[in-house]
Amino acid sequence: MATHKLLLLPGDGIGPEVMGQVEQIVSWFGKQGLGSFEIEKGLVGGAAYDAHKQAISEGDMKLAQDADAVLFGAVGGPKWADVPYQHRPEAGLLRLRKDLGLFANLRPAICYPALASASSLKPEVVEGLDILIVRELTGGVYFGEPKEIVTLEDGSKRGVDTQVYTTPEIERICRVAFELARTRRNKVSSAEKHNVMKTGVLWKQTVTALHAAEYKDVELEHVLADNCAMQLVRRPKQYDVIVCDNLFGDILSDVAAMLTGSLGMLPSASLGAEDPVTGKRKALYEPVHGSAPDIAGKGLANPIAMIGSFAMALRYSFGAGEAADRLEGAIADVLGSGTRTQDIAADGANAVSTSEMGAAIIKAL
Amino acid sequence: MATHKLLLLPGDGIGPEVMGQVEQIVSWFGKQGLGSFEIEKGLVGGAAYDAHKQAISEGDMKLAQDADAVLFGAVGGPKWADVPYQHRPEAGLLRLRKDLGLFANLRPAICYPALASASSLKPEVVEGLDILIVRELTGGVYFGEPKEIVTLEDGSKRGVDTQVYTTPEIERICRVAFELARTRRNKVSSAEKHNVMKTGVLWKQTVTALHAAEYKDVELEHVLADNCAMQLVRRPKQYDVIVCDNLFGDILSDVAAMLTGSLGMLPSASLGAEDPVTGKRKALYEPVHGSAPDIAGKGLANPIAMIGSFAMALRYSFGAGEAADRLEGAIADVLGSGTRTQDIAADGANAVSTSEMGAAIIKAL
Ligand SMILES: CC(C)[C@H](C(=O)O)[C@@H](O)C(=O)O
Ligand SMILES: CC(C)[C@H](C(=O)O)[C@@H](O)C(=O)O
Repeated sequence: MATHKLLLLPGDGIGPEVMGQVEQIVSWFGKQGLGSFEIEKGLVGGAAYDAHKQAISEGDMKLAQDADAVLFGAVGGPKWADVPYQHRPEAGLLRLRKDLGLFANLRPAICYPALASASSLKPEVVEGLDILIVRELTGGVYFGEPKEIVTLEDGSKRGVDTQVYTTPEIERICRVAFELARTRRNKVSSAEKHNVMKTGVLWKQTVTALHAAEYKDVELEHVLADNCAMQLVRRPKQYDVIVCDNLFGDILSDVAAMLTGSLGMLPSASLGAEDPVTGKRKALYEPVHGSAPDIAGKGLANPIAMIGSFAMALRYSFGAGEAADRLEGAIADVLGSGTRTQDIAADGANAVSTSEMGAAIIKAL
Repeated sequence: MATHKLLLLPGDGIGPEVMGQVEQIVSWFGKQGLGSFEIEKGLVGGAAYDAHKQAISEGDMKLAQDADAVLFGAVGGPKWADVPYQHRPEAGLLRLRKDLGLFANLRPAICYPALASASSLKPEVVEGLDILIVRELTGGVYFGEPKEIVTLEDGSKRGVDTQVYTTPEIERICRVAFELARTRRNKVSSAEKHNVMKTGVLWKQTVTALHAAEYKDVELEHVLADNCAMQLVRRPKQYDVIVCDNLFGDILSDVAAMLTGSLGMLPSASLGAEDPVTGKRKALYEPVHGSAPDIAGKGLANPIAMIGSFAMALRYSFGAGEAADRLEGAIADVLGSGTRTQDIAADGANAVSTSEMGAAIIKAL
């Protein structure tokens, strides 16, 4: 049995607490002989800044490069509001994405039946919702140059960000979307603003050509990003896979996550390209939720998004689809039995703690 | 009584139908001696392309420059999917915004009590909702240069869009937001992505400094644009005025509009700077909805967003706040009495036509 190298980067806020539960799960899988894992730990975000004065150290970047998968908690908090810009907590995450080449961010938005009533949308609008947002993660306005603030002659300032996309960058992310759609309901909605942006024009042309050349069996539709945000609110079940650029993906995936009423429960995977020799791909798995500094350290956090992120690692990095199904099934069972952390409990008084939720999931495995 | 010069640009799709109802209302106001209006008409979008091979003619641009207010219907439709990029229907609208200097786009999102149940959100989440999105409209990624697609040596292509903002541009739009907040619930939420974008960093710095210098009496909060989109879905009533850049405003205002269940009913105003000599400002008023080519010409369109846009013209361009209140009151009364066009009718069979809705509003005036 191959040994999988896992790097855990718990980060800030509730990151360490939810990561603690994943460690229990990983060790359970190990003990059952369902996988062999070698665990390293590192620092990222504010925690890394406190230790090394940078949002991730070179040593931890090296560990990330060597790992089969990185599990990432969450970063940021008011404590680091004033650190220099290049060392802000988010910089650690952005560097991991860029340096590991994690161009494909998969964000499922699933409405757990037991939680449909927690959504701010009407139950009939979200019940059974199962969307996958495929977000480009290493390009666009996040990384394009120039990206600067300059002081002008009259003393005023000018800020610039640059959105850049090339055809190969667009093709590879759309390919991921088409391939995943084939394993689902076979429909891809490509969201851009070709009516305003040249990168949108190129995006639309490129996805259209790729579809015609290789994926005619998949249904492709084009939707303007503003309209897509609207339609997600109006009638989200019309979507299967949505593919889009880095910035639109940031916003659309947050809207989609919020629809489900399960924000604390949604995992994500960020994948690199397959190595042509080893067949391996770099990968990072993280919850969609943030570091929630207000509830950190209180045992209140919901570990399900982090545990679900490990399930995605089992599926996409370790070829262990059955183990992933089993873990996701255990999560659904625990929810079905009414066990709730405070974020999803109708009656806060009966909520379980972070570690009680983790233990319940292990028991259900 | 001063005569107000109005330019009507009905555009495409349902634009001409809904504009027809506004003409009735304008002429009613004239006959009652409640205002004196001089009306010109022009072409924009696909209609202009069919006539002049460009999305707005120089002659109509001149009329727009001379008008006290432009009323704009909607542009676009499948008929013009293949016209050259620089002549696409949207180019007419973008040119009007840019050349008239209409930097301040006001998009109210109001949930009419009679329509709360039409929202996909739970009634308690949207009942009484009254948000104003103040969107920067002449800068950002919509207009920054370079904005191009180039072919690279290996035959692949590279698309570029550039987001640019200067401190004066940010200050003037935030000033509009603060001033309007003072007439409302006195709270401004400034949405950007300072964690990723340099224009976001500059935006946050600039609004913070302006607030400290001139608007300390108004509550200011900063929110990341992705989180703002989420919060709009989760708990929209936490907002009063949201101020943001052109692209975030495009998306956030569509989300906010969709919450209300009244998409066909929301107006918008796009305003320029006050002329220091005449005190006048250029202005364009348009519904938030699009040209809806599928229902065009059938008398099915809801004219309320267009009529509400004229009410905004009365308020912001003609100093006729009372007349605006009266017109908005008539709209609310007609809705209260149960009159519905098909888009908002629970029972389609009892829906009234575009012109019946217009007539009902005149009757209620
Ligand atoms: C933390 C931040 C840099 C990040 C992003 O904007 O990508 C976050 O919002 C996300 O979606 O993962
Ligand atoms: C038609 C299009 C160019 C426009 C925009 O993107 O600004 C529209 O979506 C809007 O919000 O008015």
